Amino acid sequence: MKLATFRINTPLGPVDRFGIIWAGTDAQADAVTVARTGGGWVVDVNAAFAALSAQQRKPAPTLRANAFAPADLNACAALYGPALDPVQEVSAWLVEQGEAVASGQLRGPQGEVLAHRLGDVQLRPPVRVPVLRDFAAFEDHLLSTFGKMGLTLPAEWYERPFAFKANPTSMVGHDQDVQWPAYTRKLDFELEIAAVVGLPARNVDVTEAGAHILGYTLLNDFSARDTQRGEMANNTGPFKGKDFAWGLGPWIVTPDELPDVARTPMRVLINGEVWAESTPGEMQWSFEEMISYTSQDETLNVGDVLGSGTVNHGCGFELDRWISAGDVVELEAAGLGVLRNRITPPRDATVAWRRHRSAA
Amino acid sequence: MKLATFRINTPLGPVDRFGIIWAGTDAQADAVTVARTGGGWVVDVNAAFAALSAQQRKPAPTLRANAFAPADLNACAALYGPALDPVQEVSAWLVEQGEAVASGQLRGPQGEVLAHRLGDVQLRPPVRVPVLRDFAAFEDHLLSTFGKMGLTLPAEWYERPFAFKANPTSMVGHDQDVQWPAYTRKLDFELEIAAVVGLPARNVDVTEAGAHILGYTLLNDFSARDTQRGEMANNTGPFKGKDFAWGLGPWIVTPDELPDVARTPMRVLINGEVWAESTPGEMQWSFEEMISYTSQDETLNVGDVLGSGTVNHGCGFELDRWISAGDVVELEAAGLGVLRNRITPPRDATVAWRRHRSAA
Repeated sequence: MKLATFRINTPLGPVDRFGIIWAGTDAQADAVTVARTGGGWVVDVNAAFAALSAQQRKPAPTLRANAFAPADLNACAALYGPALDPVQEVSAWLVEQGEAVASGQLRGPQGEVLAHRLGDVQLRPPVRVPVLRDFAAFEDHLLSTFGKMGLTLPAEWYERPFAFKANPTSMVGHDQDVQWPAYTRKLDFELEIAAVVGLPARNVDVTEAGAHILGYTLLNDFSARDTQRGEMANNTGPFKGKDFAWGLGPWIVTPDELPDVARTPMRVLINGEVWAESTPGEMQWSFEEMISYTSQDETLNVGDVLGSGTVNHGCGFELDRWISAGDVVELEAAGLGVLRNRITPPRDATVAWRRHRSAA
Repeated sequence: MKLATFRINTPLGPVDRFGIIWAGTDAQADAVTVARTGGGWVVDVNAAFAALSAQQRKPAPTLRANAFAPADLNACAALYGPALDPVQEVSAWLVEQGEAVASGQLRGPQGEVLAHRLGDVQLRPPVRVPVLRDFAAFEDHLLSTFGKMGLTLPAEWYERPFAFKANPTSMVGHDQDVQWPAYTRKLDFELEIAAVVGLPARNVDVTEAGAHILGYTLLNDFSARDTQRGEMANNTGPFKGKDFAWGLGPWIVTPDELPDVARTPMRVLINGEVWAESTPGEMQWSFEEMISYTSQDETLNVGDVLGSGTVNHGCGFELDRWISAGDVVELEAAGLGVLRNRITPPRDATVAWRRHRSAA
């Protein structure tokens, strides 16, 4: 199953809801094709649950849907964990209903539209992210990029997972724009896969950690390389080098649809041209190990995102090719879809951030 | 003015509200005394605004208070910014009412209690923190601690501010317990002062940045030194070394009450014994510069916290003295108050975070 958060315009202004991605009649349509063409549908889980409740002659189907199937994915996961019971009910019901949903023939009890064409809505980051941790699980990529920065991969990296934390209030979804930060001349992308937490985790063994994963999605760790370089030298990790924007999406794919992250073929396309192809390969630490390790004396929240770190050949720095303002960056992974962002030009004005100090 | 978030028990369970700290009749009582003794009062801003509205014969005083003076500090700051208009109205009104509020004689229009003894409520972190950035503004402290870690302070530190981001979902307030993380043998405290953002900031010049500060508070950057050491060597900044707990409080002091951060005397007390005394001195970068610099192409949110970094002599690592489970750690600053946390013993069980790998 694929879970998306979408924004729909109404006479009362834009409203964000979550839904199930549905390819429609074209059973062959895969995640990449649906994301790239916007040809599929997103089925509003809250509205469909109300329609299902009405069909089942339950009392007060709309009230029931608002209580049991909240229109917000974080709220729904908080109630059910990754099992997302009402989403599964709706999903099974959709198979029975078939064309009636997509045709608009079937509506909710108050006339709610159940399915929207992807081209008619704007996708948002699929969840609200309380804490965004980015790990670095791929040795080949690190050996290549650390070498270029004149750094060596420390012995500690082989002993336990490391992550830096990013600004989780800077997330952008599929097809949202990213503005080129005015302070960088070397903007870059990073192709990563990410796990999303669907059940709070604290002091959880690795064998139990998988039960806390809601699903997987693509993560673009946009990086201002010139800015980041000095920040890494300061030992405190990336700051202005990465906090301006993080791509997340296009949707969350539940674990049953993506059994083997290591063997998922991925690509980076710039303006439609393939710049990189990669298969992640084995991670030094699995997502389950990252969750279990992090959960020691610390609570992971519903919506927390754990990034894999960049996959081999997954950034311009490693490829020595650089993007420009106006470019369209697409991260692609079989089974996951495409995360596409356009880079818009930087602002004109400068920020005068230094206080005037009188000469000594 | 001092703004606190407090938890009060009701027959419907605990409820969190924000209020103004009020020393009562003892006009001499300073912030440190009030925090240490719990002898003052916290006046519920929402309830007091309703009482004021009733006195002014406004229609529907409770509805009016819920709309104009939300009981949540983040929500109130979102409406008004650091000016917090209804808080100022309530504060002026309290001066007129005098003893009637503290005595319980004066109530809200529905019988709401307006003032609670600090000893009867539990203080919480004063705001919800979307992003917690910790800077490192004090050169003497850095030269001392970097030297001990075998690191040198890089040239970049003198050129621009650096911050790492912490886990803002691990905040603890005044008098809340902190559990000793089971994975460390060297737990430490760090005495910091922090600025809280009260108005979103994006591309803000340094001359305008002060208008975005809601106030100041104490920040305890609890640190597992043995864990942190390897994380710093990995260049990505602290992770498990710091993310388990962050002390914030006891309340937010508005900028008018704390004109000169550099000259504020501070202390650390362990079980009542003074371990360190410090006056921060000039920061390499002011809070206004930190806000302006960070705001470049990135939005600071209401509730974001910017830590100063540790003040001179402000941690056990610098003092070479180490705390134990059961200790009570107090950070103290004139005008700001005391942030007190007890360290509770570690959990017994270990977390098995490594996946079993079959031998090659």
